[in-house]
Amino acid sequence: MSTPTKVLVVGPTGRTGGSVLDGLLDSSTNFEITTLVRQASVDKPEVKKFKDRGVTVVVGDLRGPKQDLVKILSGIDVVVSCIVAFDLGAEILLAEAAKEAGVKRFVPSSFQTPGPRGVMILADRKDEVLSAVQRLHLPWTLIDVGWWSNQIVPPLPSGRTKKFVLEHFSNIPGDGTVRNGFTDLRDVGKYVAKIIVDPRTLNKKVYAYTEVSTMNQVVDLMSELSGEEAIRDYLPAEKIQQAITEAQKDYEVEEKRQQATLILFINQYWQSWGVRGDNTPEAAEIFGYLDFKKLYPDVKGKTIKELFQGILDGSETPIKPFQL
Amino acid sequence: MSTPTKVLVVGPTGRTGGSVLDGLLDSSTNFEITTLVRQASVDKPEVKKFKDRGVTVVVGDLRGPKQDLVKILSGIDVVVSCIVAFDLGAEILLAEAAKEAGVKRFVPSSFQTPGPRGVMILADRKDEVLSAVQRLHLPWTLIDVGWWSNQIVPPLPSGRTKKFVLEHFSNIPGDGTVRNGFTDLRDVGKYVAKIIVDPRTLNKKVYAYTEVSTMNQVVDLMSELSGEEAIRDYLPAEKIQQAITEAQKDYEVEEKRQQATLILFINQYWQSWGVRGDNTPEAAEIFGYLDFKKLYPDVKGKTIKELFQGILDGSETPIKPFQL
Repeated sequence: MSTPTKVLVVGPTGRTGGSVLDGLLDSSTNFEITTLVRQASVDKPEVKKFKDRGVTVVVGDLRGPKQDLVKILSGIDVVVSCIVAFDLGAEILLAEAAKEAGVKRFVPSSFQTPGPRGVMILADRKDEVLSAVQRLHLPWTLIDVGWWSNQIVPPLPSGRTKKFVLEHFSNIPGDGTVRNGFTDLRDVGKYVAKIIVDPRTLNKKVYAYTEVSTMNQVVDLMSELSGEEAIRDYLPAEKIQQAITEAQKDYEVEEKRQQATLILFINQYWQSWGVRGDNTPEAAEIFGYLDFKKLYPDVKGKTIKELFQGILDGSETPIKPFQL
Repeated sequence: MSTPTKVLVVGPTGRTGGSVLDGLLDSSTNFEITTLVRQASVDKPEVKKFKDRGVTVVVGDLRGPKQDLVKILSGIDVVVSCIVAFDLGAEILLAEAAKEAGVKRFVPSSFQTPGPRGVMILADRKDEVLSAVQRLHLPWTLIDVGWWSNQIVPPLPSGRTKKFVLEHFSNIPGDGTVRNGFTDLRDVGKYVAKIIVDPRTLNKKVYAYTEVSTMNQVVDLMSELSGEEAIRDYLPAEKIQQAITEAQKDYEVEEKRQQATLILFINQYWQSWGVRGDNTPEAAEIFGYLDFKKLYPDVKGKTIKELFQGILDGSETPIKPFQL
């Protein structure tokens, strides 16, 4: 058997982190997997589940001291960070420790829709982390995955899809004609497992997505498969812009900042992928990404049609809801 | 003969712009060359020289109106911007006009040493322009060329190299042991002519350099070739940091800003290439650049040794001095 690639995943209890661990465990590549968790998370059932499958669980604190992180990272080939957007600052210390420990590839937390600087504060924050990684001369790979197909399940008059319709996510941004790359959350890890051992992706951004569709096509598809007229709840571009403008003002007020940040995150996502069209293979190329489909033409993910059919026939389970 | 590639070069009177026009004119690729100049520059001898060699000279104003720029850019395949660092803001209107005119590749003004965000305000400003280009979904190529070998000619006790020693540039930053990619200014255009017609470089950063050396090796080489002991005037890393810290304070004061900007530009360059080691093929790879030598292994530029020999035997001419 080949020498294993030693991967450390940070943030196993999040939705992306869970998918990444599943993807590494299911991969045919010889991975030796460690996950870094906070003391508070070590007894969570999802952590135990990974431990039972052979993942080494290490307790650590991203706030340091740095030397403790260096010790944890010693011998690790690849770090995959899946920490949530509110903790991104902690990645910089992690990257410093990774550099010191001789980590060969650092994957900062991104896993979102691609975009240029200056459209989404969330993306800009992640880009600040990437800049810090580059200042350290630490090799990296950044992975974005488009928009989760699990987040675009249209409501039906009968309520049959209700369990799968995400609160705050049932709108169609813009007029629904903009193309988008979609990926099932459960496929993120499968894609990550391919990317992180590939020399072609070192020091590159990779755009991984399963299929491209417009939101109108998505709703048409659900209507066709269900035999009902799926509900179309459009959120016009001007309303999105208005929400952003207001939240940008609130953002400047200390006590309103947390709420404003959430409003910006979601509305800037909608503006970027729903109105501007940043979440397409063509746009991603202009943002400097490699295209997953060109790198791995044989790797297939779950299509929106398969997902919707599974929801309608009762074989699908919903993804975990978003938690602050 | 093949269909010509229509290139428009902005800033023909600058040092990089002049090299780019020479490189396009001397190239075996079929280029149809236009240059955009300000009314004030149209009668300059260097503009007339290019006109005599078949370059179409168009007068325009980067401050707009945009529709005039759109007209100028209609039918142009590639825009190469070589405007100086103080005018970079004007590139955004130019990029908007290029998008509207259907330009296929926009090369923003960079042509410096590579680096990550957060080290040089000059590089960060250029990165802001690139972000604006990407927000427009306008295809681009960014070209950096390392440090000009013409700017590292060591002084000799006899004064034989005096004409070639650049004011403010005779120091050796740091301890002189850091590796650097160097390019003769006159080769920049030759490299640009290869890059801008290559599909592999579309939406990519390219690091073009002729050779890698340390400053100590550069001074050793001049000593060896001249038979004199070339002068070593080290500028320690701490002094560079001190100058940066002071200039950063002055930068906040309106009336001191212009002077502080110049001090930052030069000292941050020294810190980046002379101390941090950002100007190497290995670092550039981490910043996401393609390596010119891997793309075009057969293209050769003038080496430092050839340049120094030419200086010593009297066959070389100095490059134009920097002008504000």
